[in-house]
Amino acid sequence: MLRVGIIGGTGYTGGELLRLLTMHPMAEVTVVTSRGQKGKPVDSVHPGLKNLIDLTFEDVDPAEIAKKCDVAFTAVPHGAAMTIVPGLLKEGLRVIDLSADYRLPVAKFEEVYKKKHADPREAVYGLPELHPEVKDATLVGNPGCYPTGANLACAPLVAKGIVSRIVVDSKSGISGAGQDPTATTHFPFVTQNVRPYNMTTHRHASEIAQEQQRLSPGVKVHFTPHVVPSTRGILSTAHLFVDEPITQAEVQAIYEEFYQDKPFVRLQTPSFANIRGSNFCDIAFEAEQGSDRVVVVSAIDNMVKGASGQAIQNMNLMYGFDERTGLWTSGLFP
Amino acid sequence: MLRVGIIGGTGYTGGELLRLLTMHPMAEVTVVTSRGQKGKPVDSVHPGLKNLIDLTFEDVDPAEIAKKCDVAFTAVPHGAAMTIVPGLLKEGLRVIDLSADYRLPVAKFEEVYKKKHADPREAVYGLPELHPEVKDATLVGNPGCYPTGANLACAPLVAKGIVSRIVVDSKSGISGAGQDPTATTHFPFVTQNVRPYNMTTHRHASEIAQEQQRLSPGVKVHFTPHVVPSTRGILSTAHLFVDEPITQAEVQAIYEEFYQDKPFVRLQTPSFANIRGSNFCDIAFEAEQGSDRVVVVSAIDNMVKGASGQAIQNMNLMYGFDERTGLWTSGLFP
Amino acid sequence: MLRVGIIGGTGYTGGELLRLLTMHPMAEVTVVTSRGQKGKPVDSVHPGLKNLIDLTFEDVDPAEIAKKCDVAFTAVPHGAAMTIVPGLLKEGLRVIDLSADYRLPVAKFEEVYKKKHADPREAVYGLPELHPEVKDATLVGNPGCYPTGANLACAPLVAKGIVSRIVVDSKSGISGAGQDPTATTHFPFVTQNVRPYNMTTHRHASEIAQEQQRLSPGVKVHFTPHVVPSTRGILSTAHLFVDEPITQAEVQAIYEEFYQDKPFVRLQTPSFANIRGSNFCDIAFEAEQGSDRVVVVSAIDNMVKGASGQAIQNMNLMYGFDERTGLWTSGLFP
Amino acid sequence: MLRVGIIGGTGYTGGELLRLLTMHPMAEVTVVTSRGQKGKPVDSVHPGLKNLIDLTFEDVDPAEIAKKCDVAFTAVPHGAAMTIVPGLLKEGLRVIDLSADYRLPVAKFEEVYKKKHADPREAVYGLPELHPEVKDATLVGNPGCYPTGANLACAPLVAKGIVSRIVVDSKSGISGAGQDPTATTHFPFVTQNVRPYNMTTHRHASEIAQEQQRLSPGVKVHFTPHVVPSTRGILSTAHLFVDEPITQAEVQAIYEEFYQDKPFVRLQTPSFANIRGSNFCDIAFEAEQGSDRVVVVSAIDNMVKGASGQAIQNMNLMYGFDERTGLWTSGLFP
Repeated sequence: MLRVGIIGGTGYTGGELLRLLTMHPMAEVTVVTSRGQKGKPVDSVHPGLKNLIDLTFEDVDPAEIAKKCDVAFTAVPHGAAMTIVPGLLKEGLRVIDLSADYRLPVAKFEEVYKKKHADPREAVYGLPELHPEVKDATLVGNPGCYPTGANLACAPLVAKGIVSRIVVDSKSGISGAGQDPTATTHFPFVTQNVRPYNMTTHRHASEIAQEQQRLSPGVKVHFTPHVVPSTRGILSTAHLFVDEPITQAEVQAIYEEFYQDKPFVRLQTPSFANIRGSNFCDIAFEAEQGSDRVVVVSAIDNMVKGASGQAIQNMNLMYGFDERTGLWTSGLFP
Repeated sequence: MLRVGIIGGTGYTGGELLRLLTMHPMAEVTVVTSRGQKGKPVDSVHPGLKNLIDLTFEDVDPAEIAKKCDVAFTAVPHGAAMTIVPGLLKEGLRVIDLSADYRLPVAKFEEVYKKKHADPREAVYGLPELHPEVKDATLVGNPGCYPTGANLACAPLVAKGIVSRIVVDSKSGISGAGQDPTATTHFPFVTQNVRPYNMTTHRHASEIAQEQQRLSPGVKVHFTPHVVPSTRGILSTAHLFVDEPITQAEVQAIYEEFYQDKPFVRLQTPSFANIRGSNFCDIAFEAEQGSDRVVVVSAIDNMVKGASGQAIQNMNLMYGFDERTGLWTSGLFP
Repeated sequence: MLRVGIIGGTGYTGGELLRLLTMHPMAEVTVVTSRGQKGKPVDSVHPGLKNLIDLTFEDVDPAEIAKKCDVAFTAVPHGAAMTIVPGLLKEGLRVIDLSADYRLPVAKFEEVYKKKHADPREAVYGLPELHPEVKDATLVGNPGCYPTGANLACAPLVAKGIVSRIVVDSKSGISGAGQDPTATTHFPFVTQNVRPYNMTTHRHASEIAQEQQRLSPGVKVHFTPHVVPSTRGILSTAHLFVDEPITQAEVQAIYEEFYQDKPFVRLQTPSFANIRGSNFCDIAFEAEQGSDRVVVVSAIDNMVKGASGQAIQNMNLMYGFDERTGLWTSGLFP
Repeated sequence: MLRVGIIGGTGYTGGELLRLLTMHPMAEVTVVTSRGQKGKPVDSVHPGLKNLIDLTFEDVDPAEIAKKCDVAFTAVPHGAAMTIVPGLLKEGLRVIDLSADYRLPVAKFEEVYKKKHADPREAVYGLPELHPEVKDATLVGNPGCYPTGANLACAPLVAKGIVSRIVVDSKSGISGAGQDPTATTHFPFVTQNVRPYNMTTHRHASEIAQEQQRLSPGVKVHFTPHVVPSTRGILSTAHLFVDEPITQAEVQAIYEEFYQDKPFVRLQTPSFANIRGSNFCDIAFEAEQGSDRVVVVSAIDNMVKGASGQAIQNMNLMYGFDERTGLWTSGLFP
């Protein structure tokens, strides 16, 4: 059994790692850390796990963690991961970081997050459908939730070099805001409501641009996120503008080929109903008649394919398991 | 008192007219028709109106209606209005039609709705912020829900002649689908779900193109609608691409001037929380730095400003009332 | 015009008073106070009211308030009202208090709220259907949200002296918890969730017992509240146990007679869909065949009939207006 | 591998069996039937299962099913099961029936469901916490959703013989109404709404009475169900009236002993947040001070412990597996 440590186990992302790993036949969680809840049972914070887990929160001590774990997931805030990851790597652990700290080149990170990087270091961008080199990684920067869905939607067509401009308009459930209650996560405000935020300035735009411009250097990337009254799920509507006309059949062929051996990407109508709680990314597209626009829409569960599930998929690849191991489950519907 | 008839009073739009008109001090509903519910009390279909209304559904008989009414709202399906409106006009009534039948030039209508028009006739497009001629209209084609929010969002900047392309990405509550239950309005499917539909082919695109191209002939218009898990509300995110750079302050000045004497348009962060149940259209915008994109977002209640409230606003203007009469109420929040 | 002051205008209850009073033809809000937001525009806290109100928050100064107001609503926390109300009364204002401070006899208040009362004083319990003496009141203790629906459900049958035991099982929307975000108002927790709280110890039980035992001294009263994933609305299911068999027709006759001239009580299937945003209380009942149980269910909007609407209904009665004035509107549906 | 047939695989219950069985390491679905969808891929009806299942719907042919299956789940409507089950049993299959057809003694069934029983036959009531004889059953009548939560809540105290009356007030998600869209499952009606139905006449009352009166013959049982705006989940609030005073500590001891070796029953605050998508039943209780009432509340997922999960738990016991097999997962939260 692969022994797994979860560094920062009280938040939504940590809780989701625990939920998913209870179903994993080859991995076992042996350490869960929390500075604030040290000594308390893990199920006191995650009552849904009662009877399923029998651990208490520990302090973050890399040497102790290394005795009990082979791999660590760091599920701590941006800026905190960079202070913890070096110690874990030094102790010989492989690390999958779910924060933003290792997703961007250092200069870009410092520009976007307006913070000096404490641990400039190479990492693999953990979007396995686009980065097969994940399997050899020691340190993985697990992608942001918006970039996961947006990049999977755009990549096949952009990789053809025929797209000049991308407008990604995303609709996210509120769980992306985390578990701390605020005025904008208050039920009476969120329910029955839709609203945009950071209309032209969201930090995830840089991860989308990085990946798409890697595939096609000159492509212009625009991104606008919204919050919708759902807990989970991100629907990303990518409006792609192509240099010359393309037919629906041609688009279909491009996407089928690109994702032919990617089990978690399915070409079917995106709807949170089909992906809730699962690691799938469902994608559909429509070439607008008489126009230069192709609309590509993807749906993911931001907590799973957009965070903890993708982290486990990366773990599977890093340790030579089938990438589906422990993740091969249906969405929860109804 | 202005005497009002509601032709087709069993659906959501008819019910909303009744709800709003109970608050109108200058108008009184004297006739409500329904072929299917003829003879039944109106509050048997709309139990929220119990004690507030004491009418029974009548059959549609233009001569009888004309005896009791000065103005009629036709809240019947597309294609049905064109068979009823001529009779009402002939009897001397002024008519505000909430279907699609009188919104587009006949040739465009027949192309988009794939149906021969039974009553080709001039009508005023009832978006009063852009069509002051509503006040003299005998027949008003009340706009579609998506076009109302989208057109108000785009008009000020497009009217400047500097926009080359518009991508409208809209998020609508499910009440737009009406009151007949279907697989796609079933609670377990809609809740916690977001999904696109008619990604490049929605019929309302033609109303947006018509209005924007009237303001700036060459502008390209793209439209993609989505359903979100809300009952009411449409948030339209318009991504506008401008020919030359424009600053946030310039955009601000353009919108303030354009809407300076339009009481129902407010320049503030769009959120269904602020407009639910009211006739307001809230608009905000952001000029993307270092880019040719301006994002303009509007929020309306699709049942009010997107349908029945706007119809009453048109009625107010047609009869010389202050346009706010009976509509000057706050959104329902929380 | 009656001049109205709202003491404590930043919360949900104060906001709802403002929303409802914009529709009142005989009353005008002239003062809105807030210690924390003093000097700021009222619509900065309540953006739904933008364009509808042009006041700024003032400090609480009874002498100043008395110059501008005839009547004051105190919408401040329990315990705070008792420090403000005496000053307002002394200045000659009539006061409708929406806190719990004047609902119970002083000894009962101190036992239930575990707090010494700073202003022991007579007040009228402002449930106008049961307390017609409201019309002469100088100080009204506006009822709690749960007691309003529960007492209206039980009163007719209990007043007959044939009920020995009442079990009230209530289901409330989350707006009753107010506008401060907490772990139990966080959208991801509230949505798709139902949970009980204070299963046998909720403080509102004392208001239900007080009213029912006034009607029938020996009746036993039990109360258990729950939170459901709705913003507004309280459905109270009262299981009444009667001393001898009673038929459905007899129950029907009792309720019809009891509420025959009470415009806000309607005998029809309770459902939040019919009362959302309105001052109605809808009631239905079923006498269980072959049993001593009668189930009576009521639905109210906790923000309207359960708080601010009822307060305005009380104001109407105190000033000789028809009690429906400004409140005679339908629920918001869909 | 145990070979499993699902008879009636297009509805919510059949879909949930498929979802759960994809996670079962000892069982494999080999047949899924549907008369209406015969020949179509299973994932065309359940798109969430795309890539996870590669079966097509078959017709119901017991002899064919018996060739491919060891056990069958019948997930067909009430009244239909009794026409299919005899054939399956005759072919030597063991059967777990999820309809109401085999839950009650024949005379009771015919009285409650107002229908002649076509296949009077012994079956085991499949609530394994109360019926350990499930392990030897050939035919299991899987309990109704409401009775599962209600019976688990009441059993420990009722089994002590000290309860004279039970009032069960239940709050159910709408998925219990199935997947056919109707006016009462329409999103605009269900959202933000709570309503009672069949206030004194719900058919599940008989299953609650049967089980509780088996434990304590004279106990009176009352039941009232409600629909709440959630998809999944049933919260049952049982108000138990005891013959003599009992303390909180005594109740605690009774429940701990009763459920000490029942892994799916957890004694903690009920909340759908902790059980959504899982087979757990969470229970809490409070003995009212100075009263003869004990409030016991249980929460289950009506699709899992209330239907398909419990059916699999029964299957596990029938085939000698640990009852947790394939079901030992956490609820989906957030």
